Amino acid sequence: MWDKKHLLGLEELSAQDITELLDKAGDYRATALDDDKACDALRGKRVVLMFFENSTRTRVSFEVAAERLGGSVTALSMDTSSVKKGESLLDTVRTIDSMGVDFMVVRHSSSGAARQVAQAVSASVINAGDGTHEHPTQGLLDMLTIRQHKGRIDGLRVGIVGDVLHSRVARSNLFGLKKLGASVVLIGPPTLVPDSFRSLGAEISNNFDDVIHQCDVLNMLRIQRERLDGQYFPSVREYCELFRLDSSRMRRAKPDVLVMHPGPMNRGIEITPDVADGANSVILEQVSNGVAVRMAVLDTLNKAMMNDEG
Amino acid sequence: MWDKKHLLGLEELSAQDITELLDKAGDYRATALDDDKACDALRGKRVVLMFFENSTRTRVSFEVAAERLGGSVTALSMDTSSVKKGESLLDTVRTIDSMGVDFMVVRHSSSGAARQVAQAVSASVINAGDGTHEHPTQGLLDMLTIRQHKGRIDGLRVGIVGDVLHSRVARSNLFGLKKLGASVVLIGPPTLVPDSFRSLGAEISNNFDDVIHQCDVLNMLRIQRERLDGQYFPSVREYCELFRLDSSRMRRAKPDVLVMHPGPMNRGIEITPDVADGANSVILEQVSNGVAVRMAVLDTLNKAMMNDEG
Amino acid sequence: MWDKKHLLGLEELSAQDITELLDKAGDYRATALDDDKACDALRGKRVVLMFFENSTRTRVSFEVAAERLGGSVTALSMDTSSVKKGESLLDTVRTIDSMGVDFMVVRHSSSGAARQVAQAVSASVINAGDGTHEHPTQGLLDMLTIRQHKGRIDGLRVGIVGDVLHSRVARSNLFGLKKLGASVVLIGPPTLVPDSFRSLGAEISNNFDDVIHQCDVLNMLRIQRERLDGQYFPSVREYCELFRLDSSRMRRAKPDVLVMHPGPMNRGIEITPDVADGANSVILEQVSNGVAVRMAVLDTLNKAMMNDEG
Repeated sequence: MWDKKHLLGLEELSAQDITELLDKAGDYRATALDDDKACDALRGKRVVLMFFENSTRTRVSFEVAAERLGGSVTALSMDTSSVKKGESLLDTVRTIDSMGVDFMVVRHSSSGAARQVAQAVSASVINAGDGTHEHPTQGLLDMLTIRQHKGRIDGLRVGIVGDVLHSRVARSNLFGLKKLGASVVLIGPPTLVPDSFRSLGAEISNNFDDVIHQCDVLNMLRIQRERLDGQYFPSVREYCELFRLDSSRMRRAKPDVLVMHPGPMNRGIEITPDVADGANSVILEQVSNGVAVRMAVLDTLNKAMMNDEG
Repeated sequence: MWDKKHLLGLEELSAQDITELLDKAGDYRATALDDDKACDALRGKRVVLMFFENSTRTRVSFEVAAERLGGSVTALSMDTSSVKKGESLLDTVRTIDSMGVDFMVVRHSSSGAARQVAQAVSASVINAGDGTHEHPTQGLLDMLTIRQHKGRIDGLRVGIVGDVLHSRVARSNLFGLKKLGASVVLIGPPTLVPDSFRSLGAEISNNFDDVIHQCDVLNMLRIQRERLDGQYFPSVREYCELFRLDSSRMRRAKPDVLVMHPGPMNRGIEITPDVADGANSVILEQVSNGVAVRMAVLDTLNKAMMNDEG
Repeated sequence: MWDKKHLLGLEELSAQDITELLDKAGDYRATALDDDKACDALRGKRVVLMFFENSTRTRVSFEVAAERLGGSVTALSMDTSSVKKGESLLDTVRTIDSMGVDFMVVRHSSSGAARQVAQAVSASVINAGDGTHEHPTQGLLDMLTIRQHKGRIDGLRVGIVGDVLHSRVARSNLFGLKKLGASVVLIGPPTLVPDSFRSLGAEISNNFDDVIHQCDVLNMLRIQRERLDGQYFPSVREYCELFRLDSSRMRRAKPDVLVMHPGPMNRGIEITPDVADGANSVILEQVSNGVAVRMAVLDTLNKAMMNDEG
């Protein structure tokens, strides 16, 4: 039974917590995406999206989820806000909190920002990505997508490929998947997949072709082009040769391997268009599942808050 | 009976299609502008406004229209979005589409963008301006305004004046007005009114003063100042002398000529303030009619989709 | 009994007008902040927020207030709008007005802008800050906060400290507080507190330490750092020494002095963190009261409009 006020990361959740969220999201996925205002679970509640970092995809997903539950949503693009006037992060969030907010969805470039906010406000806080730390709803939607297709998480082998070093998506996936019994192999060049991840329970491979045949899932991370100009890797061309998922590399993979990507894709860099749009790709399902997962998270936190008050 | 899923342009509509939309818009115009949530036609439906090009006027008009019909609206300013991160247009719209969207209103600087989007998504797509191609709801609202004042479209002579070359408004007006039996004369310097428009059924005049007395309607297009510095025309001063609608030129026009402008106006360039605010001007009525037209379009497409599913 | 269509400033209100608004805000404050959609007073009404100057705090406050009353809200950030295309302010607001708007909340860098808008549109206009002129809802929320803590306004002595010259907050406070019987002392260096304010009924002091012990309330204005580099004052260091509210200066103040700030704070410049977060600070209460005040203003103007039509 869920008893947390905030969702800051998957690292601190139990397997049971995660399963509870996935089960509820699965229910919403089956019934709710066709109709807005699917239910009244958040009636009279206000959700403020505080995005100190831009993300159309994640912002719209939370907005749609909250409105489907009957909540009121205010989306703030905080890079054009009073933050610019020199106000501190905590003064900003305390101010918004004082207007009578029930949920604060926070995205910020600093690792740990969501936790800081949670300690400062009375609203329930959902981390929508903090620096290179966690992006728990992305982790959950990836797991929901895997479970829908494979029927389970336990015992699967998941490859996460690319710029793991800078990826909160990789970390949230790793924490969540391990808790539910999957094995995770992080794949990429040594500069982008540091050894320290072993201590978090991951295996590491610097050779995609060596391990691709073992993987039930390939989660291809977005890689920023500017990191492939010598800083982390000699060149885009060499990166593509070694780590891009293309049709020739797909021939080494399991026939039923799931191809995933958190988006936005750099088509032609980490993944080729034919694979991104191919039969194994579930990339757009991830997006649909994202709405369902965020509905489940909002509903679950809301029920916990009401129990707490009651 | 309307049977199309998208509204991409007026060129592909029949006279009957256009009349159906204008009739419905006329009904909304008469009853609905005073009250929000006028009806429930779009209850449970989600409208996403994807503006890759800025436009406060068109965006707010669609937003008001959709909300008056009881729909949920998400307005995205896509120039600050993941498009900047190098994601392709089609990946962006497919992603948003996967969140469960019923209508996508698309504005984009590329001609043909709305059609591309329509082929990529499951939502119903409304073109809110694509490059120099079409802006169909602007064409419809102009026609509604004319019909309200003149009682008909058939047999009227409409002058469209200024930067026709770069104007999707001119093209949508031309297509729509011709279908309903008006004659259209495009007025401006040869550099801004190319001969090729004759093949679309327009007459062309490079001498405003020669034809102004024939016109029942004068639709004054916005002209960007930077186009009048030698690239398309020698100078602003000379342009104003030949093509600006001012009070002395108005004396040559029919006493009941309608003065229109799609906005935003460059007061003093293509039109003088006394004419813009004068007795013949229906510029603010165009704006009010814009909301009614967009309500009619949304309602009509929605009914067509529901029939299709049913 | 309230009979005005617009709220442009506190200068033009009577003591009775202000008391009516504060009483209603006090009622909302007591009951409504926990629940969205507290009532249906604005059902079917559209509120457009036209912020030609950025302000997350004020914008969200109005948005929350309008939605709690059941209204529809459209928030426009006008610095990215057609204003950029050279359209005049009045054309812009007339255009939006023509879409069927009931309330226009206007923030603009020019003193008098809200009044100009009110004369141009059919909507009811609320000034959310115009240049250095007024910010009436900020004045009201400050007065509500004072009244809640002190039980009255009449007979109190309120110090307003800092950059009075550029502050519409100072002016709205001054007008409102005087009308309800408080005395106001404006505190700061002569360059930032001009003598001309005496004609508005204020006392002036250039020595904070001389008058701090008399004050029941200290309202610490935000000061922009760039004004303390020689233009208005020799240095930040010297300003802090003379006018910053810190714990040592607090020892000279009345034990029950209220510490206020309109935000966003420059912690360490005009106020130190220990005082901003201390027992006398009511800064976050001001924010909560802001929502209640804006609900009261919207509700009051709406009732006046309906009486006028009826």
